[in-house]
Amino acid sequence: MTMSENDQKTNKPAIVVFKPSGQVVEAEVGTLLSDAAVEAGVALNLPCGGQGRCGRCRVKVEHGAISHRSGVRLTSAELEEGWALGCQAVVKGDAVVFVPEQEQVEIEFTTQAVGAERIALAAEFAEELDPSVRRAHIVIEPPSLDDQTTDWDRLLRELSLQHGIENVTASLPMLRFLGRDLRDAEWNTTAVLEMGDPVLNPCTPPRLIDLLPGDQTDRCYGVAIDIGTTSNVVYLVDLVQGKVLDRASAYSGQISAGEDVISRIIFSQKRGGLTRLQQMVLKTLNGLLEELASRNQIPQRQISKAVVAGNTTMIQLFLAIDPRTIREMPFVPTIGQPLPITAEEIGLNINPQATVDCLPVVGAYVGADITAGVVASDMYDTDALTLFIDVGTNGEIVLGNRDWLITCACSAGPAFEGSGVRHGMRATAGAIEELWIDHRTFEPTYQTIGQLPARGICGSGMIGLLAEMFVTGILDKAGKIQRDLPTPRIRVGDHGGEYVVVWANQSGIGTDIVINEVDIENLLRTKGAIYAGFSVLVQSVGLELADVEQVFIAGAFGQYINVEKAIQIGLLPDMPWDRFRYLGNTSALGAFYSLVSRPMRRNVLKAAEKMTYLELSADNTFYDQFMSALFLPHTDITAFPSVMRILDQKD
Amino acid sequence: MTMSENDQKTNKPAIVVFKPSGQVVEAEVGTLLSDAAVEAGVALNLPCGGQGRCGRCRVKVEHGAISHRSGVRLTSAELEEGWALGCQAVVKGDAVVFVPEQEQVEIEFTTQAVGAERIALAAEFAEELDPSVRRAHIVIEPPSLDDQTTDWDRLLRELSLQHGIENVTASLPMLRFLGRDLRDAEWNTTAVLEMGDPVLNPCTPPRLIDLLPGDQTDRCYGVAIDIGTTSNVVYLVDLVQGKVLDRASAYSGQISAGEDVISRIIFSQKRGGLTRLQQMVLKTLNGLLEELASRNQIPQRQISKAVVAGNTTMIQLFLAIDPRTIREMPFVPTIGQPLPITAEEIGLNINPQATVDCLPVVGAYVGADITAGVVASDMYDTDALTLFIDVGTNGEIVLGNRDWLITCACSAGPAFEGSGVRHGMRATAGAIEELWIDHRTFEPTYQTIGQLPARGICGSGMIGLLAEMFVTGILDKAGKIQRDLPTPRIRVGDHGGEYVVVWANQSGIGTDIVINEVDIENLLRTKGAIYAGFSVLVQSVGLELADVEQVFIAGAFGQYINVEKAIQIGLLPDMPWDRFRYLGNTSALGAFYSLVSRPMRRNVLKAAEKMTYLELSADNTFYDQFMSALFLPHTDITAFPSVMRILDQKD
Repeated sequence: MTMSENDQKTNKPAIVVFKPSGQVVEAEVGTLLSDAAVEAGVALNLPCGGQGRCGRCRVKVEHGAISHRSGVRLTSAELEEGWALGCQAVVKGDAVVFVPEQEQVEIEFTTQAVGAERIALAAEFAEELDPSVRRAHIVIEPPSLDDQTTDWDRLLRELSLQHGIENVTASLPMLRFLGRDLRDAEWNTTAVLEMGDPVLNPCTPPRLIDLLPGDQTDRCYGVAIDIGTTSNVVYLVDLVQGKVLDRASAYSGQISAGEDVISRIIFSQKRGGLTRLQQMVLKTLNGLLEELASRNQIPQRQISKAVVAGNTTMIQLFLAIDPRTIREMPFVPTIGQPLPITAEEIGLNINPQATVDCLPVVGAYVGADITAGVVASDMYDTDALTLFIDVGTNGEIVLGNRDWLITCACSAGPAFEGSGVRHGMRATAGAIEELWIDHRTFEPTYQTIGQLPARGICGSGMIGLLAEMFVTGILDKAGKIQRDLPTPRIRVGDHGGEYVVVWANQSGIGTDIVINEVDIENLLRTKGAIYAGFSVLVQSVGLELADVEQVFIAGAFGQYINVEKAIQIGLLPDMPWDRFRYLGNTSALGAFYSLVSRPMRRNVLKAAEKMTYLELSADNTFYDQFMSALFLPHTDITAFPSVMRILDQKD
Repeated sequence: MTMSENDQKTNKPAIVVFKPSGQVVEAEVGTLLSDAAVEAGVALNLPCGGQGRCGRCRVKVEHGAISHRSGVRLTSAELEEGWALGCQAVVKGDAVVFVPEQEQVEIEFTTQAVGAERIALAAEFAEELDPSVRRAHIVIEPPSLDDQTTDWDRLLRELSLQHGIENVTASLPMLRFLGRDLRDAEWNTTAVLEMGDPVLNPCTPPRLIDLLPGDQTDRCYGVAIDIGTTSNVVYLVDLVQGKVLDRASAYSGQISAGEDVISRIIFSQKRGGLTRLQQMVLKTLNGLLEELASRNQIPQRQISKAVVAGNTTMIQLFLAIDPRTIREMPFVPTIGQPLPITAEEIGLNINPQATVDCLPVVGAYVGADITAGVVASDMYDTDALTLFIDVGTNGEIVLGNRDWLITCACSAGPAFEGSGVRHGMRATAGAIEELWIDHRTFEPTYQTIGQLPARGICGSGMIGLLAEMFVTGILDKAGKIQRDLPTPRIRVGDHGGEYVVVWANQSGIGTDIVINEVDIENLLRTKGAIYAGFSVLVQSVGLELADVEQVFIAGAFGQYINVEKAIQIGLLPDMPWDRFRYLGNTSALGAFYSLVSRPMRRNVLKAAEKMTYLELSADNTFYDQFMSALFLPHTDITAFPSVMRILDQKD
């Protein structure tokens, strides 16, 4: 018997080669091809979380043994050619698989974070600084045969005598080399303490998180983290000055596991999925931390606290708390105010003993990004009736003022983030972000991110496109394309009527960039859900939209919304433009405020407790409102006087 | 170039084969042979911690490249034959090494634990039970669209409503699958809570450590652990009944890293030594836990608390807290009352969230075994002036009563545990444990553990041997052997006079078992240090030994001491035998009491705080007392009237 005969009889793993990168992985027979790709470090887009629904993870099997579980999204011609869905293909033996370029997650943009974060943040905190981290310099009498007090009790004695700090505790790793650390520092040391918030909980004991040699009370750092479904942002904060020293952002490493929270939750239910998702977000965050530490020459150990904001699913995945109940009726998160943990417990690369403080969530779909935002925006402390809208992968809405707050979430869907729209894309290089159409020739003029040949259309571009198509009469109120207009740009394609935005010879992808009636339906559902959301909120408290005194728009996507055009398509209510304010990333801002000020942190908790969560799926009026909002701009055009005027002028 | 030529040029690891077991290990060139042995799983005795002082780790290099750093303990003939000290030999290339049988740690006895723990413990707690672990059964209304309270808040609400338990906290791992656990249990669940001790610290929040399906309030388990330098003992405790269900003990896995605490501390300072020592003790304890769990059919997850006693070094090594300051002047431990940790944090295989509560230590050489013992013995609560003596590898002594307690430690040395005495051994099978000598013929009669051929002499046997040799006139007051007595058993050997206890043809080791004058000097130093210790203690408070109303003898070794003979050699003070009480393993007993009763646990802390630590190395009178106690029974024979009477009778 030869060696190879023997080998063939055993269950040895299959070798899978991924082209064009050439990455190779050994995979057990029976492994999903998408799992093998993750193992190989090849990032396959799984916008639907690997359910075989979206067809975005298609790969071409060039050689070898791959079987199909489902090919719903593929034509028989494509199956013939060897195309398969990565999430539905099973490794049966050695194989060579080609991963098309456009299906790889655009990792190349993540380090520069083009489009992920473009506005300047209020990088200084104007009120009184009061971080929970405190540094105390102490000089200690060394032990002697006359005073054999233990090192720990000696340290505690001096913290009490010299600084009045009592009842200090520590976790075990702080004690392991306490003896050495004190002696190496020659008993002249700076204790770094997490003081907690005695106002909130009088029982919180101060916790020693580091001992540094000499007097190091002149510096102290923390990080404010915003974990978005799409982008993660980290601010490096000087806790002595109370200002943001630097920021870094990147697309979430979890994108390859799904583009929206539902897909991520589905992914988390796979074997090892929860841990893998946590590792993905940690990898992204640790990369950003390393970037910030190195650029600012601050050792990561010197970062003594992290405050984290993000939606409910992102927070639970960051903590590896199983998110399945977020998706199941009746939509309940595991915990509202996550208990504080140490960086070491989850593997965030700052000081291992630093507290990682996740801001509170209100419900399954109103998360810490919103509670942070309500405080950062000052909405929780204003007399004016305020509408707060965060349009991201989901739409979260808060209505209220200093006295009361009511909130809801509408599953807007990720259409404005590029999913569910054929030529939709995220706001990265080559995306059409602004657009105008000539109402006589129907020819478009557009602007792309980075002034590059157009590769697709991002959210703000889609709002502009819809608005322009509507006011120029290409679209009717129902979102149908008027096929009889005198322009070659309007034609009939696989998905009904379509409008060519960019001809193939001018596009960056070699084909026409179009928008079709199916795309438009998706966009109308998204904008309709948001409009219905705040309409229901306002009605639920017996008010009218006209009573709203100011509208805050938050979130990465919100920054690029053109209010005029958003009103024209009925995404935003029709009111004077000066009532709208773009606040930028209020989630990160709220985390920053909470980091530098315990009173602000308490405000976030108070706001979360004050917010009444309205479950739209249990609300009778939501469906009616939604159906009415599926039109351009709305069934009730009288609610949009400014749009009426424009349409009148055109006639 | 052939393959082998190529190989020889690289720095590839050497292959070392250990005979007779045949274990093989790859070791980097430059590795200590003793480290390679640990890697290979071959346990080499390193009683001196690998300093090359004791010569007990000798091995024979049969083939290959081993270099010597030191051969102090070997003769030139032995070096010629290939003998080397494992801790001083360096791997230079492939080698075959023979490990003599008698130098292997007697692992074979550890599972049966012959001699390690032989007395019955008071296995029921007579006072009111009050463990810190509490189980609460709750039936919870499931969430609905009308009540979307988070799982955690819902649980807390019911713990408060149904049981009045407030402010519950939890660590992150408890939350990870809280949603699943509650639903799998159909909202009918038993919460296992660590309640802490609000009397001691009103701020201690209850901590959720487990959620079990249905009503499981009828059972609750904990473990009491005694980590001795030599033996580790675990009691499995029923916290509902307040009784010890079962016990298991084994020799410490750390023995291969040194027999006394000083050797262990030296070992801990080697690279990776601290972690390795912690892993060794955890391996031993986890083995015992598995044994107990399997024998009693109790899942390890159901063990909800551990209370740990042990000397200061053992406690710090268990927690992997660097013990170096224990050994360095001025002898200071890192911490007196270790902060509570979870089993998961150190890797003890009980419920991962269970609190591991280490009892407090008083000083570098008066540890939690003594604080536990003082409470278990009721000494802290008695009016009678009590002397508490724990003779183990070290001698720890406490004097006092309900009003005051003073304590000291004397580095007795491990002579009574078999180290520093040529044929000394631990109390395992084949050890001579009792012995009498005919005062006319000088012939001995002895009893061995397990009634096996004698292999050596354990501590109680050595006390008997010294006493018998002294009262029969073989030894003079100074511990010198009378060489002119008419018996072939007395002769002159390499180490001066010696007495043959067992002839080779009757021994279990094929050679004569003897005791020589060097051995006797070591034993006299040990007993002299202990006698001097309590003499100084008594004098330091202006009292005399005669004032002592009761003497408690504790520790594994103490159990086997024959009081009459211990008085004859001057190890114990000469007073009526009924003043002595053998208490057995008071360290484990104190841990058991602390586990089932929070008031008892508070008493241990109060006792530790009350105990005044007398540093003998800073005491002027200790040296004089020690010199006086180096005689049989003592320089001042009038302090030993009962011994005087025996000697008078003999004359």
